[in-house]
Amino acid sequence: MDTVLQSRSKTVVIGSDKPFCVIGERINPTGRKAFQAQLQAGDLSQIEIDVSEQVAGGADVLDVNVGDPLADEIELMRSAIQLVQNLTDLPLVIDSSVIEALEAGLGAYEGKALVNSVTGEDERLEAILPLVAKHGAAVIGLANDDEIPMEPERRLEVARKIVSVAGDHGIPPEDVVIDPLAMPVGAEPRAVTLFIETVRLIRDDLGVNMTCGASNTSFGLPGRHVLGAGFLGIAASHGLTSAIMDARAPVCVEAVRAADFLLGHDEWGGRWIAAHRAKQAAQAAGNA
Amino acid sequence: MDTVLQSRSKTVVIGSDKPFCVIGERINPTGRKAFQAQLQAGDLSQIEIDVSEQVAGGADVLDVNVGDPLADEIELMRSAIQLVQNLTDLPLVIDSSVIEALEAGLGAYEGKALVNSVTGEDERLEAILPLVAKHGAAVIGLANDDEIPMEPERRLEVARKIVSVAGDHGIPPEDVVIDPLAMPVGAEPRAVTLFIETVRLIRDDLGVNMTCGASNTSFGLPGRHVLGAGFLGIAASHGLTSAIMDARAPVCVEAVRAADFLLGHDEWGGRWIAAHRAKQAAQAAGNA
Repeated sequence: MDTVLQSRSKTVVIGSDKPFCVIGERINPTGRKAFQAQLQAGDLSQIEIDVSEQVAGGADVLDVNVGDPLADEIELMRSAIQLVQNLTDLPLVIDSSVIEALEAGLGAYEGKALVNSVTGEDERLEAILPLVAKHGAAVIGLANDDEIPMEPERRLEVARKIVSVAGDHGIPPEDVVIDPLAMPVGAEPRAVTLFIETVRLIRDDLGVNMTCGASNTSFGLPGRHVLGAGFLGIAASHGLTSAIMDARAPVCVEAVRAADFLLGHDEWGGRWIAAHRAKQAAQAAGNA
Repeated sequence: MDTVLQSRSKTVVIGSDKPFCVIGERINPTGRKAFQAQLQAGDLSQIEIDVSEQVAGGADVLDVNVGDPLADEIELMRSAIQLVQNLTDLPLVIDSSVIEALEAGLGAYEGKALVNSVTGEDERLEAILPLVAKHGAAVIGLANDDEIPMEPERRLEVARKIVSVAGDHGIPPEDVVIDPLAMPVGAEPRAVTLFIETVRLIRDDLGVNMTCGASNTSFGLPGRHVLGAGFLGIAASHGLTSAIMDARAPVCVEAVRAADFLLGHDEWGGRWIAAHRAKQAAQAAGNA
């Protein structure tokens, strides 16, 4: 099942026989005080740096989140979407918990966006899915409702509900990308094994694409990027087709591209070998 | 199912709920001309360096192979096993294609060794399994007979035969470690997906431990260690419980330890966090 995302001029396809889709997560003020202050002052200049770093790191799609309780998120989202679309031709994920901000972002976006996100709660489904349908967008469905179930079967149930209600709103299953919920392995030793089980259930039962916030897994732990890299390769091998992740971490992006090659989504390693040559050329240029 | 290996003083257990077992592969003259020449002259001094590097890199078990067509492998194996056991308390894998060398190694070894390897060919099974049984050792069974089957089901059949014939010789399933055959992904794009499928079949059907020559996967490719690291994490998540690998590649050993943590075999990350602190301390000492 293919999820097609588009900017003005570029198409990215997420699918189980496609290379893993890297969604750059950096355009987000969470945990970034200076960026928060800038957003409160209506200053979007940091976004220019973030976009260029994520693109340089190899992101296929960019997540845009400008949520700050002290800023006018609706106006910021509109401006940010326009700004980012002028900076890059990568398709975008419009990311907010505020419905009016999603609406403003969708209104400003040119192409087919991915909306981040809806949960399995009726109220959220009924508020967000009509917007997604109206703009012909795709949507990320989190596998939780008012609580976060730990049992893979319960997460599958929530995912099934989201896909079903999306269908009622005219949104086909290929435009629903389920987030099976990656959680910190430092807080719950079974976090990843339950995640893998959930991914396999959703893949076998619904067959839809999946994404997750990959860096959650390694939250609070030393050697985060190595844990994140391991998680991404493992998750891809069980059926995860995309992740929201920081493309500035080469070890994580390389792990994803290695998994593409190993899993037969980069046949004969054309992309892997080209990336290796480009890296060598850049190193040689740096040493010259 | 637990495979217990022992040296004079140390026990290592391979099992699906245990940390992944890293079998250091370096003590092997294949592709090493200087080492070959030394072995032909009866000089074992290189082994001292190899042992210390594999131990420092984090190997749990060491593979010992002194096969060279121009050397007296039988005598070399006897001396090498004694030498390595005097250098380290890690359990050993006695690795040869020459049955008399396996016999000499088993005779010299103190503890419970792992024999590398037997195939599904009747002649090899009937020659090697009695030696394994006589010495109370464990054995690696390659999932091929006179040809290397590509279909996972055929590999499972060969594995089933090896486990069954081993049983006839009084060797229990827990002392048979199956090698599902890791092959170069640069030569066969399906090499890893077929490997994963084989691992899952053997795990579900036979439940025995598994190992493989992990570096085969990345043979001839740039960025070998990153591919190898990705392969190891993925393979562990589908049921591989051990690998013969070069412990001098930190990115590969770290990938294995990250997988342990992610898959719940290093609960609360005690080992992961301790390794990180040791690395930081070593770096601080290096900078002081």
